[in-house]
Amino acid sequence: MKTKILLDENDIPKRWYNIQADLKKQVDPPLNPKTKQPIGPDDLKVIFPMELIKQEVSRDRYIPIPKEIREIYRIWRPSPLYRARRLEKALKTPAHIYYKWEGVSPPGSHKPNSAVAQAYYNMKAGIERIVTETGAGQWGSALAFSTRIFNLKCRIYMVKCSYEQKPYRRILMESWGAEVFPSPTKLTNVGREMLKKDPTTSGSLGISISEAVEDAATHDNTNYALGSVLNYVVLHQTIIGLELKKQFEIIDKYPDIIVGCVGGGSNFSGACFPFVRDKIIGKKPELKIVSVEPLACPTLTKGEYRYDFGDSVGLTPLLKMYTLGHTFIPAAIHAGGLRYHGDSPLLSKLTKDGYMEAVAYYQNEVFEAAMLFARTEGFIVAPEAAHAVKAAIDFARMCKHKNEKKIIVFANSGHGHFDLSAYDAYHNKALQDYKHPKELIEKSITNLPKI
Amino acid sequence: MKTKILLDENDIPKRWYNIQADLKKQVDPPLNPKTKQPIGPDDLKVIFPMELIKQEVSRDRYIPIPKEIREIYRIWRPSPLYRARRLEKALKTPAHIYYKWEGVSPPGSHKPNSAVAQAYYNMKAGIERIVTETGAGQWGSALAFSTRIFNLKCRIYMVKCSYEQKPYRRILMESWGAEVFPSPTKLTNVGREMLKKDPTTSGSLGISISEAVEDAATHDNTNYALGSVLNYVVLHQTIIGLELKKQFEIIDKYPDIIVGCVGGGSNFSGACFPFVRDKIIGKKPELKIVSVEPLACPTLTKGEYRYDFGDSVGLTPLLKMYTLGHTFIPAAIHAGGLRYHGDSPLLSKLTKDGYMEAVAYYQNEVFEAAMLFARTEGFIVAPEAAHAVKAAIDFARMCKHKNEKKIIVFANSGHGHFDLSAYDAYHNKALQDYKHPKELIEKSITNLPKI
Repeated sequence: MKTKILLDENDIPKRWYNIQADLKKQVDPPLNPKTKQPIGPDDLKVIFPMELIKQEVSRDRYIPIPKEIREIYRIWRPSPLYRARRLEKALKTPAHIYYKWEGVSPPGSHKPNSAVAQAYYNMKAGIERIVTETGAGQWGSALAFSTRIFNLKCRIYMVKCSYEQKPYRRILMESWGAEVFPSPTKLTNVGREMLKKDPTTSGSLGISISEAVEDAATHDNTNYALGSVLNYVVLHQTIIGLELKKQFEIIDKYPDIIVGCVGGGSNFSGACFPFVRDKIIGKKPELKIVSVEPLACPTLTKGEYRYDFGDSVGLTPLLKMYTLGHTFIPAAIHAGGLRYHGDSPLLSKLTKDGYMEAVAYYQNEVFEAAMLFARTEGFIVAPEAAHAVKAAIDFARMCKHKNEKKIIVFANSGHGHFDLSAYDAYHNKALQDYKHPKELIEKSITNLPKI
Repeated sequence: MKTKILLDENDIPKRWYNIQADLKKQVDPPLNPKTKQPIGPDDLKVIFPMELIKQEVSRDRYIPIPKEIREIYRIWRPSPLYRARRLEKALKTPAHIYYKWEGVSPPGSHKPNSAVAQAYYNMKAGIERIVTETGAGQWGSALAFSTRIFNLKCRIYMVKCSYEQKPYRRILMESWGAEVFPSPTKLTNVGREMLKKDPTTSGSLGISISEAVEDAATHDNTNYALGSVLNYVVLHQTIIGLELKKQFEIIDKYPDIIVGCVGGGSNFSGACFPFVRDKIIGKKPELKIVSVEPLACPTLTKGEYRYDFGDSVGLTPLLKMYTLGHTFIPAAIHAGGLRYHGDSPLLSKLTKDGYMEAVAYYQNEVFEAAMLFARTEGFIVAPEAAHAVKAAIDFARMCKHKNEKKIIVFANSGHGHFDLSAYDAYHNKALQDYKHPKELIEKSITNLPKI
């Protein structure tokens, strides 16, 4: 009885899966915020390389992964699929629980799956420098790692309060050679403007995005990189789901329930889209696919499906997605990667169309689940991933109640080694379950979808 | 061209290798500090379970690994063997560099290889509670993880200055359910005595060992656990070297040079003893085996081979080993796991007998090597493991100079996710290269052994 289902390095998928090829109706296109007309490649090429712009709009079902990217993936991929037997035993559930573990990458999360690709395409396009923003620091550290591998310069605008609260994430990025600045900075017009208004501001992801975009747009040989939401980011992350499918083939099983946390949606979309295809084409109509989000930022469970800006300031194209409004400021929960007002347009549409469902939790119950996981399976997961753990445990409990031997798999997006202060707060009963405006939580939405 | 040489879970060795079976002359026995007579099992059974005492003195070449222990090893073992191709390229060396990566375990180092075994044997013996000490926190977190798995209580006396400097390590241990106290405490006679003398003391590993031993000796159903030095700890760690041998068999190669860092010596002994056997039996006389230590604590390069206490206070049996004297207090280098005044008696004897050699480095050159490693291979290694990285790089440079295509492998004992403040100090040029009494560094000892 194996604990891990491993694939050989030569089984690293050679193509990403593009779900746009299988949508019955495409997502509504991004709009230029001024003209309200669909944007074209020309609007994007100031800050993105053409190869990524092509991927953003491609309808090809499979897109080849260049050899140079696969060479870097070999450092940690294929990532292991674990059977969580000790957790099952603790829950006394007849269900089988599996998890796909992305914590094995050098930056410790799924983020380098796309960061490596983005650094590579920029390098190929002759770009010498990439700028980005980071909140909790997962994306920033993935991009710092990836730009170093391809010998690009990297600058990261890190939200000031995170910069101050998470020095280890900052040091990690610097160890890979990136410049990291607490944002807002005096380096950009946006930053200077913000500092003039409020010299003591703690910053926000929206401001940092604006600084990074301005930096990229105003410097030669410099592009911008984004770690979630966009179609091509989701595309790169399908390496997770493609491996997962192969791993289930090896053990001759197929999941009944797939669970993952959703901030911008890249990790979970990557893990589940190859399975969503089976639902779309009618091969697996009964498959349950469930996003998990914090009640403090309940985009899919409580947001509206409409056009909105990707950033807080309102500089980006308008995207059709589930959103809480681009000015929504979520409470300061520890799962920083889930504090985003919107969602991937692809994941939003598939949720809208009924292929996927969503649940939301308070953070104390999420940390309680992460503790049970740590004490049975051993790994300390990131607060983001802990949301998926919680839902997987709840489904396993439901299986116990109904005496059903379902196969549950969750996307375990990364380790929590740089988030231990959150665990400390949980141990000390200092974690708040943030309440939100009444209209957002008028009824409990922690009830799981029926299985 | 693969990056990782992986073994299947079913290839986890079923037996540990005991080098005592192959020694031409045994190590001199531990002595009772009062009588100066060899100690017997009765002296040890107050704080250790009989199964471990038997392993300590066994002359059997192979000792079966119970199935229950192998089940837990499956979480992260077999650990991967990496070929460091990007590092080789950066060095322009014809040498091939490999590393055995123990950073994949939940506590992030090789320590659980023995902690799991010690927790298991104590559980089997009916023990309900284990106490230990920890300095940097690697051993403490491994024992916290392992005792949780086998449902034992765990108390950890953590050296006070580490407790204050490394809160993340403390939180990690607490997340697995251990009690962690800054030592000296008011919970033991030793601790109270120390606090009476100096209420503001920052503690020492010696004091913490004494507290843990006193706690174990004075509580029912409570034993003590030690993370290095002892024969049975080294025995458990041979799982590393046994896997390593299989991995080299798979690629049909055999190393020319094996390198590893040495504090108490358990990681490197575990990695190299199965290969040392090939030297002892005359099969591989030319194999180079090199320990790496900090110049701040140069036990093997500058210590004396003689009987000394294992702790600073002088309560333990006398062990025959290389030692700087049990009252030696090393400078506060960041590689806390290498700050021990002595060494494993087995490793000491094999060094004395010429089967192994040793080199020592300043910490700035060690961090410089770790940075090159991080920026080529991706992983951020612990300051301890960085010592091995440094020597491997130096050997690879020597190979370049001599145009020799040697195979170099180093034991990469763990990640540095909880040691990033050390990297920060290095980036800021704030790391001191601690100078020591003249007699310890009267000549440079960073010259590598000839190859």
